[in-house]
Amino acid sequence: MSNSSKPYVIGLDLGGTNSVFGIVDAEGNVVAQTSVKTRGHGPKVEQYVADCVEALNVIIAEVGGIEKIKAMGIGAPNGNYYTGCIEFAPNLPWDQETIPLAKMFSEALGVPVAMTNDANAAAIGEMTYGAAKGMKNFIMITLGTGVGSGIVCDGKLVYGSDGMAGELGHVVVEPHNGRECGCGRKGCLETYCSATGVARTAREILGTTDRPTLLRDIPVDEIESKHVAIAAGKGDEVAKTIMDFTGQLLGRACADFACFNSPEAFVFFGGLTKAGELIMDPIRKSYDENILKCYRGKAKMLVSQLDDAKAAVLGASALGWEL
Amino acid sequence: MSNSSKPYVIGLDLGGTNSVFGIVDAEGNVVAQTSVKTRGHGPKVEQYVADCVEALNVIIAEVGGIEKIKAMGIGAPNGNYYTGCIEFAPNLPWDQETIPLAKMFSEALGVPVAMTNDANAAAIGEMTYGAAKGMKNFIMITLGTGVGSGIVCDGKLVYGSDGMAGELGHVVVEPHNGRECGCGRKGCLETYCSATGVARTAREILGTTDRPTLLRDIPVDEIESKHVAIAAGKGDEVAKTIMDFTGQLLGRACADFACFNSPEAFVFFGGLTKAGELIMDPIRKSYDENILKCYRGKAKMLVSQLDDAKAAVLGASALGWEL
Repeated sequence: MSNSSKPYVIGLDLGGTNSVFGIVDAEGNVVAQTSVKTRGHGPKVEQYVADCVEALNVIIAEVGGIEKIKAMGIGAPNGNYYTGCIEFAPNLPWDQETIPLAKMFSEALGVPVAMTNDANAAAIGEMTYGAAKGMKNFIMITLGTGVGSGIVCDGKLVYGSDGMAGELGHVVVEPHNGRECGCGRKGCLETYCSATGVARTAREILGTTDRPTLLRDIPVDEIESKHVAIAAGKGDEVAKTIMDFTGQLLGRACADFACFNSPEAFVFFGGLTKAGELIMDPIRKSYDENILKCYRGKAKMLVSQLDDAKAAVLGASALGWEL
Repeated sequence: MSNSSKPYVIGLDLGGTNSVFGIVDAEGNVVAQTSVKTRGHGPKVEQYVADCVEALNVIIAEVGGIEKIKAMGIGAPNGNYYTGCIEFAPNLPWDQETIPLAKMFSEALGVPVAMTNDANAAAIGEMTYGAAKGMKNFIMITLGTGVGSGIVCDGKLVYGSDGMAGELGHVVVEPHNGRECGCGRKGCLETYCSATGVARTAREILGTTDRPTLLRDIPVDEIESKHVAIAAGKGDEVAKTIMDFTGQLLGRACADFACFNSPEAFVFFGGLTKAGELIMDPIRKSYDENILKCYRGKAKMLVSQLDDAKAAVLGASALGWEL
């Protein structure tokens, strides 16, 4: 994918707080990195881009100048691959509804720039440098504040008719009396299996049991997903019940997802996967119980192999190799 | 796709009873047709193929000989695109578990042959000649004895890691106390929205209501999906309730499916679509109620435009143009 004259791509992980830039080689080494606060550049996105380019030029010079850069990839909330625009992202500070960020960076830097959302970028990163290397059909599931996904069919990210495909966190897993979701609907996978969903499960279970648990040491409103994982790791039975419930739902949802593209693997990424087998084991068990016979035993259940701190930048950068 | 020297493809719709062959031009006209009983050739598939080729040669001669044929496509139950084999099809008469039918026809005829399952063939047919002409992202839903599907992403049928992708009839729509499915699991879409599912709904509803209905004129064990459609067409309120229930579930399921590939359209095919707006209207209503905001108003809900009697052969033939 790289060639000797242009051995690098730039990745931008655009988050609500920080915009992290990395210059990455074909093996997935981040050879230079910088970051800029996403806020504080005023309401005009032009100023944000100008400030980013100023910071970027420093690390671009470090690797030998823009001639060494093949392209740039951006992973951003609500990033649309087809348009290169961020569309209606609620947590970003600019005064435009549609922000043509790919075009703006491309014009400022003089290299091709592509953009997609963070979960899609993670999937491409996993395919380029990580657990899905060489795979043509897999599904990436990102377990963070929400549940995101990136779907790969026949070696290509599925963008759909509008560039917005792959929102598996909003597949409804509880059609009756499901939990209310931020999207305005009920019963979405995300309401159960995101970090906030796990915390919600913890509060629900603590409210209905007298069983002793380490989780009672934490004020109930402050319980987070990571507390559950830590307690489960210490053998706490209530915490293990919460992990089992979460994994059971994820496994069942993935069994439905398999009917779509019969993937070679599901790759899980995000805080919840830090619990290791405490979450992966119930996922696998539930998947095996729920999977349609013709798909049985085919899909691997994998955890991302990308370094957490660098995964988002790597994912974004990987998009650059495709240009 | 065609050229002047090879203007035709052969399509084979391989069913449990009949094997229907058509020679098809680039506009989807079936210029010659023949058929052979699927059974009655003994347990060896070789004899079946030999008898098919004998019948085929007659219509091939009619269009100017095999030199006029670009390729052949086969739509068959459990047909695997990657291997060109029928794998473990329960209703076919041959003594092999894996039948390399594409290879056998290719060797006998001297043209390339591809195979896939019937719902995938229908999707390709719809894309080549029908309602999805020119579309790059859509989902075909076939409502027959079962519920089948063919998924198209970026202009390509999704075959998945094993050639068996696209079994949306077995996505679980009722995770708790769902109906038992022939696949051994519970709550699959197929148990509600196939022809047999609709008849099952009719029997359930008739058992719990005293409301007058035309459906009581039919012995309860003999009620079929088409009776419900006919009664609904006459304004029968109970029959309309059954159609509403069915469409409601289909619309909700499609709203989940949209999260995969954000399709431009869903194309419905099969007996149930004969009910026209009596089924399409509740599907659309339920889809609109259940769809994630970012996809709202984007996907069309269409009925197949292919002539029923020819659709399966056309679908199979369309596979030939891709070779």
